[in-house]
Amino acid sequence: MVIEFYKYQATGNDFIIIDDRENIFDDNDSSLIKSLCERRLGIGADGLILLRDHLKYDFEMLYFNSDGAKSSLCGNGARCIVKFAFTLGIISEKTSFLAIDGEHQANLLDEDVSIRFNDISKIEFDNDNMVIDSGSPHFIILNEKINDINIDYEARKIRNSIKYKAKGINVNFVAVDDAISMRTYERGVEAETLSCGTGAVATAVGLHYSKNVEDNVVQLNTKGGVLTVSFDEFNGCYKNIWLTGEVNLIYIGEFEC
Amino acid sequence: MVIEFYKYQATGNDFIIIDDRENIFDDNDSSLIKSLCERRLGIGADGLILLRDHLKYDFEMLYFNSDGAKSSLCGNGARCIVKFAFTLGIISEKTSFLAIDGEHQANLLDEDVSIRFNDISKIEFDNDNMVIDSGSPHFIILNEKINDINIDYEARKIRNSIKYKAKGINVNFVAVDDAISMRTYERGVEAETLSCGTGAVATAVGLHYSKNVEDNVVQLNTKGGVLTVSFDEFNGCYKNIWLTGEVNLIYIGEFEC
Repeated sequence: MVIEFYKYQATGNDFIIIDDRENIFDDNDSSLIKSLCERRLGIGADGLILLRDHLKYDFEMLYFNSDGAKSSLCGNGARCIVKFAFTLGIISEKTSFLAIDGEHQANLLDEDVSIRFNDISKIEFDNDNMVIDSGSPHFIILNEKINDINIDYEARKIRNSIKYKAKGINVNFVAVDDAISMRTYERGVEAETLSCGTGAVATAVGLHYSKNVEDNVVQLNTKGGVLTVSFDEFNGCYKNIWLTGEVNLIYIGEFEC
Repeated sequence: MVIEFYKYQATGNDFIIIDDRENIFDDNDSSLIKSLCERRLGIGADGLILLRDHLKYDFEMLYFNSDGAKSSLCGNGARCIVKFAFTLGIISEKTSFLAIDGEHQANLLDEDVSIRFNDISKIEFDNDNMVIDSGSPHFIILNEKINDINIDYEARKIRNSIKYKAKGINVNFVAVDDAISMRTYERGVEAETLSCGTGAVATAVGLHYSKNVEDNVVQLNTKGGVLTVSFDEFNGCYKNIWLTGEVNLIYIGEFEC
């Protein structure tokens, strides 16, 4: 069987996206998904996304990490599938789609795609670090010298610690200076990625909650580009959260399986 | 302009190959080549190969490393372009093509592709290590514990040393036990790759010359699979050198530029 795919990237997070409105792709075939995501031996990607039809929503997003397993929300992947749905003609500039954590609204404006996140009211501390679930669980460490960190080594110690090992956790290292810079280790990919959408949202909310930023529009510099997070806050509850940044189609391809 | 490409891999060395018999691709556009080879932001590959027409040979191979620069011979890339030329119908099971270091013969047999290398008679020593040019320059270090090495760190010290910095050199770490295992750091990619064809040839010749192997058919285990090197030797001169291993098409794609 020949399957067509689209390769997208959003601030350096890259995804294989397949139009699976005819339900042809076996979403339980985790070994195929893993092999497709392998760099060098496969197509290579941080994750694979299926676009499926849905009765109530414009479409449904099924997301798999590069290890082949179904995963929690991927913010940059969600932004990519919105652009893809627009290119297919399924949606116009506004949409409402279903992901694993429920409904999401999204807007397209030129190169940018914005998606709305669920409200966040639970912000926990683990020693001096914050733990926030923004659709995926995130551990946030403030660190002035994020460029000098051996991130895979440091993050794996946390991700594989007794407390987090079973469910896994993404680990963000964040420097707040004149600008905000961040690096993220992603569970499922089990390595640093060039950026992370849910990580950017968790970080922006965490920085506001801990009074490291005052504004309710936060720009974050990732290795792959700039992400913007905006929100309303009342009594420690964050609502109307939006993640915005560029999305690009890199190429179209087809593989046999 | 839309350009079609083919993604091949040979024991884990992966390449973007373009049928450029109509001379459309600008082979001086190193920034385009570099961006296409970028993993995550581009297609992702160890190198890019153009197939061009040639008056005297079945075809010509133009090879570029992932840094965008024209480079010396790539053995696994050569094996991939032979399979590609066969798929296009340009050649049958035997061919003679032109690469940067001159003519190469090649044979196809089922999944395997063999290419013939130029003779090697110059084997130098740098302390206890060998330096052999098999179409590309190679530094060969015998080391029992190649799996424990931080290869990028160790190899860069040699590749960037005063002696080799200007021209660059590939660095192979080789363990000889019941079987032979090797890992290669490639200049131009500036990182470890899953295997290296010219590195396998240089290593097999070096191991025979230094009497670490006796046979004139040498199997080498790379991270991406098994490569076989065969040769005739007389008075320290190596002739009739052939490199053999699997080649696979991963997928077909097209990008806009």
